[in-house]
Parts: sequence; structure tokens; C-alpha cells
Amino acid sequence: MYSSVNTIWVLVGAAMVFLMQAGFAMCEAGFTRAKNTGNILMKNLMDFCIGTPVYWLLGFGLMFAGGGALIGGLDPMVRGDYSAILPEGVPLFAYLIFQTVFCATSATIVSGSMAERTKFVSYCIYSFCISAFIYPVSGHWIWGGGWLSDLGFHDFAGSTAVHMVGGICACIGAATLGPRLGKYDKDGRPRAILGHNLSLGALGVFILWFCWFGFNGASTVSMTGDDTLVSAGLIFVNTNMSAAVACCVTMIYTWLRYGKPDVGMTMNAALAGLVAVTAGCDAVSIGGATVIGIAAGLLLPISVNFFDSVLKIDDPVGAISVHGVCGAAGTLLTGLLAVDGGVFYGGGFQFFGVQCLGVAVTAVWTAVTITIVFQVLKHTVGLRVSPEEEVKGLDITEHGLPSAYGGFAFVYDDTPDGAAVPDAAPGAAPVPVQEAVPVEVVSAAPAGTAPVSSGGVKMTRVDILCKMERFDALKRAMFDIGITGMTAINVMGCGEQRGKTEGYFRGAKVEATMLPSIQVSIVVCRLPVRLVVETAKKVLYTGHIGDGKIFVSDVENVIKVRTGEEGYDALQDAE
Amino acid sequence: MYSSVNTIWVLVGAAMVFLMQAGFAMCEAGFTRAKNTGNILMKNLMDFCIGTPVYWLLGFGLMFAGGGALIGGLDPMVRGDYSAILPEGVPLFAYLIFQTVFCATSATIVSGSMAERTKFVSYCIYSFCISAFIYPVSGHWIWGGGWLSDLGFHDFAGSTAVHMVGGICACIGAATLGPRLGKYDKDGRPRAILGHNLSLGALGVFILWFCWFGFNGASTVSMTGDDTLVSAGLIFVNTNMSAAVACCVTMIYTWLRYGKPDVGMTMNAALAGLVAVTAGCDAVSIGGATVIGIAAGLLLPISVNFFDSVLKIDDPVGAISVHGVCGAAGTLLTGLLAVDGGVFYGGGFQFFGVQCLGVAVTAVWTAVTITIVFQVLKHTVGLRVSPEEEVKGLDITEHGLPSAYGGFAFVYDDTPDGAAVPDAAPGAAPVPVQEAVPVEVVSAAPAGTAPVSSGGVKMTRVDILCKMERFDALKRAMFDIGITGMTAINVMGCGEQRGKTEGYFRGAKVEATMLPSIQVSIVVCRLPVRLVVETAKKVLYTGHIGDGKIFVSDVENVIKVRTGEEGYDALQDAE
Amino acid sequence: MYSSVNTIWVLVGAAMVFLMQAGFAMCEAGFTRAKNTGNILMKNLMDFCIGTPVYWLLGFGLMFAGGGALIGGLDPMVRGDYSAILPEGVPLFAYLIFQTVFCATSATIVSGSMAERTKFVSYCIYSFCISAFIYPVSGHWIWGGGWLSDLGFHDFAGSTAVHMVGGICACIGAATLGPRLGKYDKDGRPRAILGHNLSLGALGVFILWFCWFGFNGASTVSMTGDDTLVSAGLIFVNTNMSAAVACCVTMIYTWLRYGKPDVGMTMNAALAGLVAVTAGCDAVSIGGATVIGIAAGLLLPISVNFFDSVLKIDDPVGAISVHGVCGAAGTLLTGLLAVDGGVFYGGGFQFFGVQCLGVAVTAVWTAVTITIVFQVLKHTVGLRVSPEEEVKGLDITEHGLPSAYGGFAFVYDDTPDGAAVPDAAPGAAPVPVQEAVPVEVVSAAPAGTAPVSSGGVKMTRVDILCKMERFDALKRAMFDIGITGMTAINVMGCGEQRGKTEGYFRGAKVEATMLPSIQVSIVVCRLPVRLVVETAKKVLYTGHIGDGKIFVSDVENVIKVRTGEEGYDALQDAE
Repeated sequence: MYSSVNTIWVLVGAAMVFLMQAGFAMCEAGFTRAKNTGNILMKNLMDFCIGTPVYWLLGFGLMFAGGGALIGGLDPMVRGDYSAILPEGVPLFAYLIFQTVFCATSATIVSGSMAERTKFVSYCIYSFCISAFIYPVSGHWIWGGGWLSDLGFHDFAGSTAVHMVGGICACIGAATLGPRLGKYDKDGRPRAILGHNLSLGALGVFILWFCWFGFNGASTVSMTGDDTLVSAGLIFVNTNMSAAVACCVTMIYTWLRYGKPDVGMTMNAALAGLVAVTAGCDAVSIGGATVIGIAAGLLLPISVNFFDSVLKIDDPVGAISVHGVCGAAGTLLTGLLAVDGGVFYGGGFQFFGVQCLGVAVTAVWTAVTITIVFQVLKHTVGLRVSPEEEVKGLDITEHGLPSAYGGFAFVYDDTPDGAAVPDAAPGAAPVPVQEAVPVEVVSAAPAGTAPVSSGGVKMTRVDILCKMERFDALKRAMFDIGITGMTAINVMGCGEQRGKTEGYFRGAKVEATMLPSIQVSIVVCRLPVRLVVETAKKVLYTGHIGDGKIFVSDVENVIKVRTGEEGYDALQDAE
Repeated sequence: MYSSVNTIWVLVGAAMVFLMQAGFAMCEAGFTRAKNTGNILMKNLMDFCIGTPVYWLLGFGLMFAGGGALIGGLDPMVRGDYSAILPEGVPLFAYLIFQTVFCATSATIVSGSMAERTKFVSYCIYSFCISAFIYPVSGHWIWGGGWLSDLGFHDFAGSTAVHMVGGICACIGAATLGPRLGKYDKDGRPRAILGHNLSLGALGVFILWFCWFGFNGASTVSMTGDDTLVSAGLIFVNTNMSAAVACCVTMIYTWLRYGKPDVGMTMNAALAGLVAVTAGCDAVSIGGATVIGIAAGLLLPISVNFFDSVLKIDDPVGAISVHGVCGAAGTLLTGLLAVDGGVFYGGGFQFFGVQCLGVAVTAVWTAVTITIVFQVLKHTVGLRVSPEEEVKGLDITEHGLPSAYGGFAFVYDDTPDGAAVPDAAPGAAPVPVQEAVPVEVVSAAPAGTAPVSSGGVKMTRVDILCKMERFDALKRAMFDIGITGMTAINVMGCGEQRGKTEGYFRGAKVEATMLPSIQVSIVVCRLPVRLVVETAKKVLYTGHIGDGKIFVSDVENVIKVRTGEEGYDALQDAE
Repeated sequence: MYSSVNTIWVLVGAAMVFLMQAGFAMCEAGFTRAKNTGNILMKNLMDFCIGTPVYWLLGFGLMFAGGGALIGGLDPMVRGDYSAILPEGVPLFAYLIFQTVFCATSATIVSGSMAERTKFVSYCIYSFCISAFIYPVSGHWIWGGGWLSDLGFHDFAGSTAVHMVGGICACIGAATLGPRLGKYDKDGRPRAILGHNLSLGALGVFILWFCWFGFNGASTVSMTGDDTLVSAGLIFVNTNMSAAVACCVTMIYTWLRYGKPDVGMTMNAALAGLVAVTAGCDAVSIGGATVIGIAAGLLLPISVNFFDSVLKIDDPVGAISVHGVCGAAGTLLTGLLAVDGGVFYGGGFQFFGVQCLGVAVTAVWTAVTITIVFQVLKHTVGLRVSPEEEVKGLDITEHGLPSAYGGFAFVYDDTPDGAAVPDAAPGAAPVPVQEAVPVEVVSAAPAGTAPVSSGGVKMTRVDILCKMERFDALKRAMFDIGITGMTAINVMGCGEQRGKTEGYFRGAKVEATMLPSIQVSIVVCRLPVRLVVETAKKVLYTGHIGDGKIFVSDVENVIKVRTGEEGYDALQDAE
């Protein structure tokens, strides 16, 4: 005899938790660069698509088939009898889909931290492993009747079981991969790599928040009985309160620390608050949820900064801090703030101890297993793409997709990663810069014929056409030889690879005879043109097709608007 | 004894109404400029995050704690006994979250009208005030057992209580701020300021429409009893019908008035129809909802134009007209169209009078209190950013965010469709390419004066400025005559169609003196310049305005980085 | 006596199916080019807005009013008695809204395949026809008590009734229109036309997947009784499994065939799996759903390629294959895989035969009627825009919308607000414009040496590099002194503020040594260069860092393409 309302609740909840995939996809795409957008979307799609059959074949059985302390059982295709563990009045398949979407949430967390540099094939494999056994085993301990649930460990909707597991995988993955090219300067200071679309990022946050009402709310897996109904209302209020308060706290924190309220960090804070309250949303009061929100809102920016600047683990979307740190913190805080049994409510330290134990043991299990997975991958198919592929972007190199925004408009991508591309081969520049012969410079324009002349000093414009990824290095080299200003324009260079097929889009060949390049323009006066040319050659030379070209032409005059200076004087300092 | 179905209904409705925050955020971001996107997203996030604890601490009590005619009571943290006002079978906390998301909707409406120029700190403060007392007090009159509900005022889901309150705050806010810089020309005529992303705008509209099924549908706060179930079905149909019809009417209106169906205005019309039907969706027939939709669809474009051109209140997203005007109109139309008591159904003027009174009194309350708030802000922390900050954009000046789209890609729209445009008329090129006289090429630069010279060979740069759609054909023609490389840049060409009106955006003329073009640059050496020029002329010639221009200038040298070749040799093959 | 849970289920389902409009809109917009984005969004909005009243006035009656074999009845505004066909416990209006959103789904499928070239007015008309009678009539046969349902045809949630009907309309529409310009090269090989925003495309896919839980799940139109509850759970699992497996299969297929896993095609595969399982999601086992997913995942890329390369029907979003082919395939596979009556379960061929018959007859009905509609349209108002309009984009030509991304950042921000920035300090320009000495202009290039010369008249190029916000003022000043044309390019200016920290992004410093500027290029001939320079200086001068620079260089010739004029003459008027 099944219950209509319980089943409705579980199924609506499952649909909402499914939609979290959209939220994660938008967040992760928005907080990373456009050249990897197709890749990150594909990863978000495929972890769910791989996870769904895998969880049906392996995961669900490991988690729920049998009441062993450490592990459930093997029940491919979910054909066993689960009446012992099914929530009252909920049919098996409704429970299966509900658990499937929870599992996929855990797997999808990882992609954000490992974004912009992970091999797609490796992603598919480790995503398989998370859904097949890493998540199900600790999930069995916590929710499947295993030893942690027997001890009284309380993780209502999965701060630990879902989020911390995902966050720890994310952390070890990001650390194993190493930072993205250009993330740290030569002194090891982190550089911001701006995401390409905060609108999508914000949309993702709002969608996730919405879905969290299903994630936490539907985890009652019942809407029968007064206690449950009261609890469901409280869960909604607590979930919402913690997220809202975390945003307020992080906003104030960044405002005080950086002078301005930070948009991206505050968005992340909403997720931090949601993750943190997930373990205890049914067990704490609204005041307790507020405290959890405050803690998450403080912890998040500190943790992001700690991983970024101290541990130097490059986490493009902050998933380690959001899911790992705040997931653990929320589970521990439940031990302090649970109205029934929490330390602050006079429950003593036993419950809190169990919470600590559960967090620690789950963390160890996850860390050990995922480390094995990553190390095996690293030494077989490889975990990280090559530097060249990373600079080009994973869309084109991993998927043959020229751009996720092929039919769009036009922008300059000022990411610093170009600087980290391996330097040109030694001896690249045939004429060493030091030996460049300073040339005598005279005016090409006959005096008198050029009334807006530069006072008898020849001025020359050097236009350098090169690959975008070399621009950062070129810029630095030019500053080093004394160039004080330049302009850069995105251009499409043509002819370099005529007729070469660049990729496929929905099965049709993409003709890519036009390649994005950058044109850097410098006007020089006293500085020898030959020095500029040879420096550029040295920086740009690799010996491969596409090293670029340099054009030299005459300029009659330069005027600086602010000072009215003309000619040589107009070029003498930075502004 | 709580009811499962009622509680499910209220909680699912609450989650859906929460998602309206995403809808508003996408709409407001999409209809404003990219330089303010981070700021507008942050505002949409923070009004909810501030509103949630504030409503818990103050608002809910003022609205529902006690049955006074004018005000509820003070009940910080919602600890009182609300059994007198709770819907049947719905637990307190479920009702609290439901009311919280309604309150936040009212607050978030304001941000759109005040977008792109409001100080963030002031935004936080007035958003606090709306959630703390402005919305709750009039909400108490209408829904909390206050004097208006005693009189029989009918505002089912909040055309007045939520939307008109938000719309009036928006109106007074936009008027107090003054228009965005450049919104009006020196003769006071409005200029269109295009939004940066209509895709997000449309997404926002669809999300809001979806959420409105929760907003209106779940406002039954019950799914028990045949009458309620029939009513819920009717509410869904009415809500949908009004929105759909409003879109049709506005589309036809703009088609007739501006010659083309306006996209942005029609999207707004969906929201206008939804707002208008909110007051009476339970009380009117489907035919009545159709009439309300027609009214909203007519009222919206007229109202937008009135505020834009006559009152000169700059409302970037049209929130004043959508929420304020259509909110009031929908409440009044309920007085005419309600099947039970409406004027058109023989109910006489008493009910209609109450509706008029309710609208008027709520408008006055809101206007007075929000005016005080804005004036205090204006004379203390300030309400508007400086002109310099406004021009730079609020993302960087208010949040230190260089751009919400920092990591965006750069893409050239290399769609091949230009190739298929009908060829130039026969005889277009006065000098057939075959007959072009190869010219003798000599160096323009006296030897010796150009130390980075091209070895005595004249090199020439040909810059061709043309329409983007001709680029593909031009590229092919250039390859055919032996050109091996070129660069293309997107430029804005100016002067071609000075002052011509290019289109309308939400009823305001779009000045389009700058048109996108492409500038193709080719450096030629042995190949006759005249051949390049005539070929380009032949390909580009149509005889119509906009065929483009060709510029010829001297180049002193070209260096190929990979080989070190200079001059003529550097141009000899594709790379 | 209505049922609370059934009504909740149907209404929540209706809201979710409504949201499919957002999913389709994002998919279709994302997979097409930015110049048509406003148009495609408008189409997605309007098919629903037109369909809603039309279905109320005509469609619902034709589908459900009366039990005739071929057609229901005429019941404008749904005033009849439907108790015979209403699901148990569901009020009429709840069922009406549920059916309305299904009808709109069918209509909206068509817009994707006909995107980027269809007249908007024709779109509105044929969308009307689909909702008014094409969909309702075959819908009556299948769901309304008509002859196919009498035969035992099983199409649970509409693989045939909704998706195949939409897909066939899409196919005939795309074939009638012909391919987009440039889609096929002169040898008839298809060329990829990249979509402009795969992020939105992916979002659309996730939203559709989410909504499909309502589409299929709520098609039980009941949540009463154990069988129904078990079935609902199975439907959720099957729906999810088929989509997930289809993605895996298509990913592997494209990986093997094209060497890399294709992003766009894999996204489409999710929809293919969802469409295919829709007919039998209640009738097949989870294993059966897996098989359906495998079939859809294989069929999709083959079908897309077949239509693209063999039939040469240009379908920008793949809707023909997703909805038409997979819709039919899923219906037929139900005949094989249905646990009760399927061929593979020993049910013999009778049920499968009925499935085949149903698919064939519905296909013929749809094909015949929509062909008539399209042919009438083609020969009256016209179905396709002109080639010129297509190249320009439908946003500007059909809606007067310059761009759906008008206010985007990187593109040039042509907001007029710069004009309102406080003017330069008095006395800014050291040489007042009025007193600028007109200079004698002579050719810098020796005659005879420059065969493409400008006829002995010196022509000079003035490049002005300045802040974007000053551009508007500069443009006006240049027009005032008689300049008739200019080009503007967005450049990144470097060196002006080396090392200054511009902001923080999630707590990391943003290095902003590159600042966006605008470079305005003007070629002058008779007009004194000094006048142009001094005017620019006057407009741009503020005395602060960043006022910009002006570069002057020689131009040998200018040719105007339209008139063939060269030199001075080529510069004499606006075009």
C-alpha cells in the first residue's frame, strides 16, 4: 500500500534535484573561460549520463542491497527486495530515481575544480568510479544501514555523504592536476582568471538554490503525519535562511576586506550556506540555521583564499571550499546545534563525537579511493591535457568544437595563461637582441611637405601579428626593452591553414581558414626599430607554422592629448 | 492535524516563487548593459538575502501577528501563535517560507527600474526597508486581517499587495534618481539604450511565467475540497490565458505602430498579463482573464511610452508599467469582471469601489514611505553613483569586477552565408581584372633612409572596408588572384547612414549611425596593387550605398617570424 | 468528487511542461546565430501565446468534444461536458491547461528547423494552424477516443502525437524553405554553421530533461492506487535512463566516427532519448528503456547526417531527427519492447502492427495538412525572407531590433551617455580650433613612383586612440568640422596603468594592464590635418592620465567601391 503524497514528494524532489545539473553546468561554465565552455558543459552532461546506468548496475546495490556494516551488496539492475530500507509508502523505482540524482550531484561537483585542464576521457572514467563505488560505499555507511548510521551519525540530506565526498574528490583532483597555466606568477602569487559569464553563474546559483528545496525538503521522503509536515516546513525555512545569511556575511566580509562587495564570492556563499545546512536542516532551529549560515559565510572566503594563496590548489569555481569545507563544517555544526542532542543544547559530546568521526572516516575513505583512481589515470591515459591544448582551449582540442560561441560577436581574452607556455627553443632568434645594431634614424618625410610632422625625427609603426597565447610574453618583452605603450587588436588571420578541417559541429565539417590572432601595434621613435623587430622575433619564434609576421611602416607624427606633446616627446612615458 | 496535500502545495509553490528571483535577475540583466551586469545580479541576489532574515525578524510579525486594522504586531523570529491566521492544515513554517518569497518578489521588482545608476549600499538599505515594513504593513491590510480585507478588498495573489507596491517603489526610485546619462538627447527625446542579452531576458520571462503558476496557483494555500481543486485549475488557465493574450495584443500593437513586431516589448507584455490577472485569477472566468490580458497588452506599450517620453522617467526594464500600472489595472478590473460581485456581472459598484479604494490607499502608503526612505538616503549616503562611475559601469566601480564577461571568447562570425548573396551586377567593375595593367613597382622609400627596409621592393598595404556579408566572397577572390594571407578586423563604420532610424527598442528609436563592417588588410609586393584593388571592386560592387572603400598605403618592411625572411620573401607562402 | 493528489499531479505537470518553452527557446537560440536570436526567441514565445487561445477556441474541442472516430467536436471556449473523457478526479480546467501545454510543445518544435530564414508573419499563421487543427485531429485519434485509441495504439505521453507531429511539420517546413544561404557549397557539401551560444543550448537541454519528468510522469494524470504509483516511479526511471544512455551512445559514436566526442550532437542525443521513450515509458522495463536509449543514440547522428548530407534538408537544430525520427522510432519500439504485448515479450505482431499503422497514418495526416498550409503561405504572404534580409539577420529586418546583444560589453558600447560626461576644462586645447592654420597639402609620394596614387593630393590617415566614453563626443565634433566618415575599432590599450590593481575576482587580484580603448581612424584630404588633430585634442582633453594619443600617417590612395572614384573624390560624401 503506497502513499500518494509520499510518492509525489519523492518524485517532485527527484526532478528538482535532477535540475541541479543545469545549475552546476551554468555555474561552472560561467566561472571559467569561453574557450573551455563546450568541454565543461559536456562534462556536466556526461557525468550524469554515465552515472545513471552505472548507479543502476552497481551503485544502488552497493548502497542499499543488504545491511552489512561496510557495504550493501551486488544487485545489478536493481532486481532485489528492498522493502526493508524503502521509505514508507514509496515504491522502489521512485526511490531509485531519487537516489540516482543524489549520486549524480556528488559526481558533478568535481568537474568545476578540475575545469579547463582535465582530459575528457579521464573525466569520464573517474566519474564512473565515483558513481560506481566511492559514493555508494560511504553512502551505505551513512544512509544505507551501515555502521555510521548505526552509531547515530546524522547527515540528513548529505552535507557529508554528497557534498563533502564530491568536494574531497575535487580537492585531490585539483591538487593532482596542478594549477592552470598562468594561474600563479613566478613568485607564486595567484592571478585572477576571470570567468566568462557571471550571468550564467548567477543563474546557476539561483537554480541550485531552487533545487535545494527538493534536495533537502524531499529528503523527508514522506509527507505523511504532522511531525513530518512540520519538519518539511522547517527544512524549507532553514535551507533558505542559511543560504541568505551566508550571502550577507560573505558580502560584508569582502566589503570590509577588499573595499567592495565581491559579486562572485557572494554568489558562491549562497551555495556554501546551502551545503552547510544540508546535514542538519531537520535538526536545528531557525536560529541554528542562521548560525550555520554565518559560519558558512565566514568560512567560504577564508577557505577560498587559503586554497588559492596558501595551498596553491587552483579551484576555478571554488567547489572545494563550498562543498568540501562547508560540507564538513555543516555536519560538525549539526553536532553542536541540533536541538535534540547537540552540544549547545546540553546533549553532551557523544553526538558531536559521532559527527566528527563520520566526517573523518568518510573523508579518509574518499581521499584514499579517489587518489588511487587519479594516480592510475595519471600513469595510464593521463589526467591532464598538454600545455598547448590548454592554451588553445579544450573545446577545440578535446571536442573539435571551434567555439561554443561560434556564431557570436567578438572579444579579447586577456587571460594571463599565455605567459606559461614553454619558451621558444634556444637560439630561436638568429640575431641576438644584445647585438642588434642600433640604426640611424632619419625622417622619411621631406620637411616642409608634412606640416603635421614629427620635427625631423623618423617615427615608425611596427605591427606584430601573432598567436593570442604569445601576447602576454610579447608584452613583457616589449616593456623590458623600453617600449612604454602599445595597442592590441583581435584580428582574424587568414591563409595560414587553408582548407584544413578544424573540427566537426554536429557532424558537419567546420572550415576554419580564419584563425584568431592578435595584432600588436607599437610606434617607436628613438628606440631602434631593429631592436623591436628582433625582440619580437625572439619571443615569437618556435619554428612552427603560425609564428606570425611583423609589418613596419612610416608614421608622420604622434600627438599626446593630455600634454599636447608631439613626436618623440609624445612617446616618452607610459601614459 | 495538518494536511499533506495542502502542505505540499504551499511548499512546492514557495520553491517556485523563490525561482522568480532567477527570472527577475535574468530579465533585468538581459535588458541592461553588460558593464552593469555583475551589479544587477548582485542586487537581485542580495534583496532576497537581506529580505529573508529581515522578514523573519520584523516583516512577518507586522503582517500577521495580531488582527489590528492597521498593523499586525512585533514578533521577532516568528515565535508567536498564528493559528488564527494559518491556512487550514498548513504548518506555520511552511506558511512562513511561502510569505517570505512573496515579500522578496516585491522587493526585487525595484532593482530593474533603478538599474545602472544606483549606489549599491543604498540599494541594500531601501531593500531592507521594503521587506521590513513597507510591504508588510500594506500586506497586513490586504492579507493579514487588516481593514482592507475586512472591507472585502480582493487581491488574490498580489497584483496590488506585491506588484503594485514594488512598481510604485520602482517609479519613485527611478524618478528620484533621474534618467541614465544619455537616455535623453538635448531636446529631451528618449534614446534607446539596448539591453545586452535578450536571450537571458527571454529566459527570465519564461521562468517567471512558470513560477507564476506557483505564485497564483499555490495562493489557494489548499488543495482540499472540490471547490478548491476546481478553482486551482481555473487559476492555472486564467493565469496562462491572460499572459498569452497580452503578448498577442502587444505584438499586434507594436506591429501596427512601429511597422514591426517588437521583441522586447512583447516579452514585457507576458509579465504585464501575469501581473494583471494575479488579483482576480480565482474570481474571473476564462473570458474575463482574456479581457484582462487584452487590457494589459494595450496598457503596457502605452504606459512604457508615457513614462519614457512624457514623464521622462527612465525605467530600463519597464517595471513601473508592468508591475505598477498593470498591477493596479488588474485589481480594478477584478472589480469589473469578478463573476461574483463584479460590475459587469450585475454586482453593482460597491465591490468595485472597494477595489479602487484599496489600490489608492496602498499606492499612497507605498509612495509616502518609500519617498521618505529615498530622500533620507539621497541626503545621507547618496542614492546615485557619480557620472564617472556610471559611464565606467557599476561592475568595476561598485564591485571591483572588471567585467561579468572577463573570460569571454573572441569570435569572428565566419558563417559562410555571405558567399551565397547574389553576385554583383554584370559589368560592375569598370576595369575587368584580366585587363588590369601590371604596374611597375619601385620603392617609395629612398634607400638608406629606411634601415629596416624591404630591399628596394615597394610593399603596399591595401585596407578594404566592406560589409561583413561580402567578406567570404572577397576572401575567395583574393586567394584566386594569388594573395596568400590577410587579416580581418571587425570595425564599426560610421557616416554611411547618418541619422537614419534603424529600429525600435521597446518603443524608443535606435540611433544607428555606427554599422558593423569588416576591414580586410592585405600587404602586397610583386602582385600589382591595381589588380588587388580592381578585384576587390568587382567583388564588392553592387551599386548601392555601403559598398565600401579601399585604402592604399606604403609599408616599409615585412618580417616573417618563423623563417626570418624579410620583404618580398616574407610574403611568398601561406604561413 | 475530485482527487487532491491527482489534481496536484496534473497541475504541477502542466507547469513543468510549460517550462519546456524555455528549454526549446534556449536550445534553438543557442544553436543558431546571434543575428537571429531576437527572432527565434519571439517565435518561441508567440507560438505558445497564439496556441493558448486557439486551443481554447478550437483545438480542445476538436480533440476531446465527442467520441467520433475521426474528430471530436466544435466547442469554442470549452463549455461542454467532458466528464466522459476526464481522468478520474481531475477537474476540467486542470485538464485543459495540461492539454494546452502539450499542444504548444508540438507547435514549438517546428521553429528550430525553420530558423534563420522564415518570415515571422508566416510563422504566426502556420503555428496557428498546427494548434487549431493539425495537432488536435491526430491527437483525437490517439488520445481523444478516436479510432487509433480504439485499435489499441499506445502512445503514452506523445512520441507520435506530440513529437512526431512536430517533427514532420519541421521536416516539410525546412524542405519547403530550402537551406540557409551558404549551408551548402557549390558541390553540395554541407558546411557547419556554428550556433552562437552552446551554454544556452545546454541549459535548454537540461531544462527540457527536467520538464520531461512532468511531460511523461504527469501523463499518468493520476497518483491514486498502487499500480499508478509504481508506474509513476518506473516512468521517471525509464525517462531518465533512455536519455542518459542515448547520450552515452551518441558520444561514443561521434568519438569513433569523428575522432572526438561531439558536444552539440551529444546534447541533442539527450532529447532524442527523451522523445523516443515517451511513447512507451509506462510499458517497457528499465532494460527496455535502455534499449530505446541505445537506439535513439545511434539513430540520431545517422539521421542528422542523412538529412544534412543526403536529403540536404537544412535543419539548424536537428529537430527533424530528434522529434520526427526518434518520435516514430520510439513508438515502434514500444511495439517490440512493451512488457505486455510487445513482440520481444511474445505478444506477437498485432500490437506492433497497430503501432506501425498509427505512426504511418499520423505521419500522412500531418504531412498532407502541413504541406497545404506551407504551399498556401508560400504563394500568398511568402514563407521565406529575402536573401538580403537573411544575410542581415532577422532581428533587424523582421523586428527592427539592431541586435539581441546590443549592450554587450566587448562589442562597441554605442551608448550615447558619453556625451553627458562633464566637458573638458576650459582652455583645454592650447590651439583653438578657429585659429588653426589651414595647411598647404602636397603629395608626399613622388609622382610616377605610386601608380595607384591619389592624383597628386596628399591624403593622411589620423588614428585617434581614446577612452570609449569620449567616442560619442569625438564623433559629433568630427562631423561638425566636416568629416564624413570614420571607422572605430575596439582595442586594448597597454601601458597606461601598468601594474595598477583594477579589482578582485573571488578574492584574487585582477591585473589590468590592458584597458579597453577605442581607435578611431579618419582619412583626410582637403580638410587640414591640423584642424582634425586640434579638434580631437579639444574634445578629448581633460588633463588626466588616459586622454589618449593621435597618430598621423600617409595614405597613398582611397577608392570608393560604389562609384569607382579615387583620391579626394572618394572622400567627399557620407557613403
